[in-house]
Amino acid sequence: MSSPEKIRIAVLGASGYTGAELLRFLLRHPAAEITALTAEKNAGQKTGAVLPHLDFEDLPGLARVAEVDWSRVDLAFCCLPHGVTQDVIAGLPRHVRIVDLSADFRLADVEAYAAAYGQKHRAPALQKEAVYGLTEIYRAQIEKARLVANPGCYPTSAQLPLIPLLREKLIEAADIVIDSKSGVTGAGREAKPGSLYAEVGEGVHAYGVATHRHAPEIDQGLSAAAGRTVTASFTPHLMPMNRGLLSTIYVKLAAGKTAGDLRGALEAAYAGEAFVKILPEGLSPATRHVRGVNLCVTGVFADRRAGRAILVSAIDNLVKGASGQAIQNMNRMSGLPETMGLDYIALFP
Amino acid sequence: MSSPEKIRIAVLGASGYTGAELLRFLLRHPAAEITALTAEKNAGQKTGAVLPHLDFEDLPGLARVAEVDWSRVDLAFCCLPHGVTQDVIAGLPRHVRIVDLSADFRLADVEAYAAAYGQKHRAPALQKEAVYGLTEIYRAQIEKARLVANPGCYPTSAQLPLIPLLREKLIEAADIVIDSKSGVTGAGREAKPGSLYAEVGEGVHAYGVATHRHAPEIDQGLSAAAGRTVTASFTPHLMPMNRGLLSTIYVKLAAGKTAGDLRGALEAAYAGEAFVKILPEGLSPATRHVRGVNLCVTGVFADRRAGRAILVSAIDNLVKGASGQAIQNMNRMSGLPETMGLDYIALFP
Amino acid sequence: MSSPEKIRIAVLGASGYTGAELLRFLLRHPAAEITALTAEKNAGQKTGAVLPHLDFEDLPGLARVAEVDWSRVDLAFCCLPHGVTQDVIAGLPRHVRIVDLSADFRLADVEAYAAAYGQKHRAPALQKEAVYGLTEIYRAQIEKARLVANPGCYPTSAQLPLIPLLREKLIEAADIVIDSKSGVTGAGREAKPGSLYAEVGEGVHAYGVATHRHAPEIDQGLSAAAGRTVTASFTPHLMPMNRGLLSTIYVKLAAGKTAGDLRGALEAAYAGEAFVKILPEGLSPATRHVRGVNLCVTGVFADRRAGRAILVSAIDNLVKGASGQAIQNMNRMSGLPETMGLDYIALFP
Amino acid sequence: MSSPEKIRIAVLGASGYTGAELLRFLLRHPAAEITALTAEKNAGQKTGAVLPHLDFEDLPGLARVAEVDWSRVDLAFCCLPHGVTQDVIAGLPRHVRIVDLSADFRLADVEAYAAAYGQKHRAPALQKEAVYGLTEIYRAQIEKARLVANPGCYPTSAQLPLIPLLREKLIEAADIVIDSKSGVTGAGREAKPGSLYAEVGEGVHAYGVATHRHAPEIDQGLSAAAGRTVTASFTPHLMPMNRGLLSTIYVKLAAGKTAGDLRGALEAAYAGEAFVKILPEGLSPATRHVRGVNLCVTGVFADRRAGRAILVSAIDNLVKGASGQAIQNMNRMSGLPETMGLDYIALFP
Repeated sequence: MSSPEKIRIAVLGASGYTGAELLRFLLRHPAAEITALTAEKNAGQKTGAVLPHLDFEDLPGLARVAEVDWSRVDLAFCCLPHGVTQDVIAGLPRHVRIVDLSADFRLADVEAYAAAYGQKHRAPALQKEAVYGLTEIYRAQIEKARLVANPGCYPTSAQLPLIPLLREKLIEAADIVIDSKSGVTGAGREAKPGSLYAEVGEGVHAYGVATHRHAPEIDQGLSAAAGRTVTASFTPHLMPMNRGLLSTIYVKLAAGKTAGDLRGALEAAYAGEAFVKILPEGLSPATRHVRGVNLCVTGVFADRRAGRAILVSAIDNLVKGASGQAIQNMNRMSGLPETMGLDYIALFP
Repeated sequence: MSSPEKIRIAVLGASGYTGAELLRFLLRHPAAEITALTAEKNAGQKTGAVLPHLDFEDLPGLARVAEVDWSRVDLAFCCLPHGVTQDVIAGLPRHVRIVDLSADFRLADVEAYAAAYGQKHRAPALQKEAVYGLTEIYRAQIEKARLVANPGCYPTSAQLPLIPLLREKLIEAADIVIDSKSGVTGAGREAKPGSLYAEVGEGVHAYGVATHRHAPEIDQGLSAAAGRTVTASFTPHLMPMNRGLLSTIYVKLAAGKTAGDLRGALEAAYAGEAFVKILPEGLSPATRHVRGVNLCVTGVFADRRAGRAILVSAIDNLVKGASGQAIQNMNRMSGLPETMGLDYIALFP
Repeated sequence: MSSPEKIRIAVLGASGYTGAELLRFLLRHPAAEITALTAEKNAGQKTGAVLPHLDFEDLPGLARVAEVDWSRVDLAFCCLPHGVTQDVIAGLPRHVRIVDLSADFRLADVEAYAAAYGQKHRAPALQKEAVYGLTEIYRAQIEKARLVANPGCYPTSAQLPLIPLLREKLIEAADIVIDSKSGVTGAGREAKPGSLYAEVGEGVHAYGVATHRHAPEIDQGLSAAAGRTVTASFTPHLMPMNRGLLSTIYVKLAAGKTAGDLRGALEAAYAGEAFVKILPEGLSPATRHVRGVNLCVTGVFADRRAGRAILVSAIDNLVKGASGQAIQNMNRMSGLPETMGLDYIALFP
Repeated sequence: MSSPEKIRIAVLGASGYTGAELLRFLLRHPAAEITALTAEKNAGQKTGAVLPHLDFEDLPGLARVAEVDWSRVDLAFCCLPHGVTQDVIAGLPRHVRIVDLSADFRLADVEAYAAAYGQKHRAPALQKEAVYGLTEIYRAQIEKARLVANPGCYPTSAQLPLIPLLREKLIEAADIVIDSKSGVTGAGREAKPGSLYAEVGEGVHAYGVATHRHAPEIDQGLSAAAGRTVTASFTPHLMPMNRGLLSTIYVKLAAGKTAGDLRGALEAAYAGEAFVKILPEGLSPATRHVRGVNLCVTGVFADRRAGRAILVSAIDNLVKGASGQAIQNMNRMSGLPETMGLDYIALFP
């Protein structure tokens, strides 16, 4: 069953939503072979028992991380909780490349990590080695990385439209408001009261107002692009839907610039990109049009207020916001075409 | 059946969602007697045929506006489309008081109306007479009004938290961003493609970005409060839910002011109000906690950016954003206790 | 604050959905005074912390059952898990009347209880005393009861349409299929994986096929009506909605009988009932038309197969299927008008 | 762009949900080339204007049927309304093979068609030629067909589990109850009041009780399998979800047979089938586990009533219930592997 030319893959934390989404792509990826799946609580079960939609697929059973035979693994996707992740990754053999979907290696500054996540970082050396996996922006570094820190869903939706604009100084770095709306899978598969159907259905609310842990991650990327420290206003909202993430971003134009200039700059920055699309004037993206696919689609509008613009970006939080981008990074780390195994059409409706 | 001391009420356009919601309140209102219901397309049908949840209630059948016996009507709620509304209202006898839920009389400036609604206003004299029905703010004028223009849902959610802050100059009038999320009943009951379940369910999108007709209505109220022209950034979003409207509002503090000052000012402004509530520090409202009730609940947060704050307000778009506030205005216009017939508890979940 | 003529009420297990729903009705009930609320895990918190939609109401804080001052309680609603319930109720002073919303006292046969719930009944004497609280059917006994076992949601939706038909032998007792669809609040507020939004949204499935614990409860009621042992086919389904329960019931007509005969019999049986309604020919009920109200609405149809009929009944699982019926029983036990505090109109949409 | 070895395809009625779903599969199908798309109302527009999720794909624009160059079409998928369909298909050149997703050619008996659809069939000769496209059952005929009548969604979910059981006389043909629950896309993309979000969300109802047009189609298939006339009880329900269809089927076992016998017979009948799966004892399917994929999954249970069983089948109404099965038929008609272009994994959640 093993093909020498295939990448042998372990998915750690395979029983959650990002794990399941990785399996959806990997099972049909021409260059991937899944050799190990782990899930501490469900270890010993077959994968289809926990993910019934995969019950008809040929998959390894669920094991504990400690049971994985790493000699049969070339690359690991890590879908574990933050904190736990750094310990697990620190223990992996050096030949295993890693795409980490947790937050543990996203913040270059371990002090910022400690402040946001309430615990000292226990693998600062690994943190130095980690490359931030926003593929379109850090492609060259990702190609050479052993450890890629896959971006958070909110940061992906905010950085892709904003980074080119900040790099070209088309907008004011000091005045950015990001209002984001996410489907509930962003909160994971853990049985938390706030994720119950009856606490999410038929309603909307903001959470983590001005305190969400993705904010420093957003700041980090925007600051690098602006060449100065950026602090963004950022409010996430929980939506009554499974998937999808929309960010509405309010910006101040640099002197003399127009919304059309922003659109033009984004079109130029992402020309030829398979997974980032800029809409023509007047069109606004919808999360339902990117359901299940590795796309970030952005619309650009002149604001009613003079000298300002509004950007609206849509992703599927589990795909371009997590597992799809992780596969994109795997492809890039492995010298494969970046789009391999990701060429899907959105499931609409 | 008629009680001389009761207000005899007509609901024009009774077959839509705001009409149905008025009937929910009026049927249990101690001082209301429903004497006429109209629905042009469904005229001749019994009301329960169009609104089956009311089939067991004692209600007049649906008639055309032209068929109403106005001698039996003291007060009319008008739930007709804009444009049509001004003609109908212009034709009503003077003894009939009116709460208009359309947009036709909300904008004091008929030129602004023409610009926003794409048609010349045909009843400018009536417009002069109309009072804007944001009850907590214009209570005194409403008491004496014959014609009350009931506010739009978005403007209600934006103005209630912002007006006291602008009046007291606690925030900068020139830098206000309002990001709003509304349930789909805000679009009415007309069979439009964009309101189909499969075009709304499991997704979110912005619409009318920088062009929505509620924006000039918001500006009008904020300008009056600030004593200068205010233009707000405003983006509405369509949510996969029936009811509820959340506005996340980003403001710049006046020099030396804090988020706590804003909360204090709102608590003071709305102390003793039955239908406007300010949450303590750290709490954020959810639309599901105001489902079906005439409440606007607001949370106040310090922003991550220095010198800025974030306000989050929640209403039920059909209640405080439409029919509930209309009843509140009727009560006020009729010398009744403002809370009469509105003392409900939210339907959660 | 205490009024001697009011019923002083404790709600045990007040932090869940049936508890919250009881509070919605009790807070506006003219003859009710809430003197104690319990919630073991949340004891010590104010009620609004756990049920934020009640934060603006005047309510006691949450205590443990052991802390309740029973001298200030006339009647207790018990919303505790089965098993726990019988111990708690066995420990209550005799002056306290009880409406129990758990399953512990619904099955007259303690052996049937043991089989369905996997544990020996520990209060068989109390079980003998308990009256089954399907109000329209057992009204006379309920009036005199100290302990009323409030029916399950599925059994309510199935028994109300079927009992009159079985009593009058209009249908064959041996051939009854009940296919039920319930909103997710029926599973309670506990953080279980199967109740997560992402495990319920955008999908439907059957559960407990042929093994659900409500089946013996249904059989018990149908058997009593038929005067012989009835075993019904029964399949519950979990729906992507908060509230509502629809039962589609397939029956075989007694020789010579028609669907019209069934409708006529139901109309006669429930003539004058405030909370049970039979639809005219051709109409089918929808759960959204009974949202939030204490109604059971039934439609009756001739089947395509000769000699058979289909009944469709709709309730709100939290109201007529739980807390609304519980209040109805309280009213009856207290000599109050049965509809007191329950005269609401459905929240549509 | 044209490859001589590819099947050149027209999709008639491409702007609706089944059309869009065909495009999702066809755009990634190795042997398909889309040469024409029609949509009468939207003719002249680019396809991405009506189906924004396809805006980044290379697709012909929308034309009218009358404008199609049939010399460039080998096979047409027909997603037009019934009635219209037979006229359009009658007008197509003979070299064009057709998979018709409408109801116009499903019923072999044109009198039955007239009774169900309220109009005389105007292409009875074509009807004689048409093959019913339930692929697993009529594979041999489909291979040779020019015109395949793709089954309805409800009939697919009912026939796949029942036909093998009737053929082998394991169940009583005279006592079959089919209770089905469908997502709202089954009603199409037309702007009808009953398909509005607010009329479907947060609720469930039965419709077309004992009168739905899919019932004669179900009877036709079951009768052929049983070798006698079968009339099934059938009730469809509208669910608050986009996609998915669950049928709960209540059957009487033939003398001496068990639920295990049914499961065994289904396993044997569908052994080796890629798109029909039978679950092991105790497992029940969920529509969310077949979202977006061409699968019918069935669970089999002993009923509580002796001598009876319950089958639960799940499909995606737009895939195995419409467009996926249509591609499966195209593959079979074209001598391609049946699974080509259909090998997807469900989008969960």
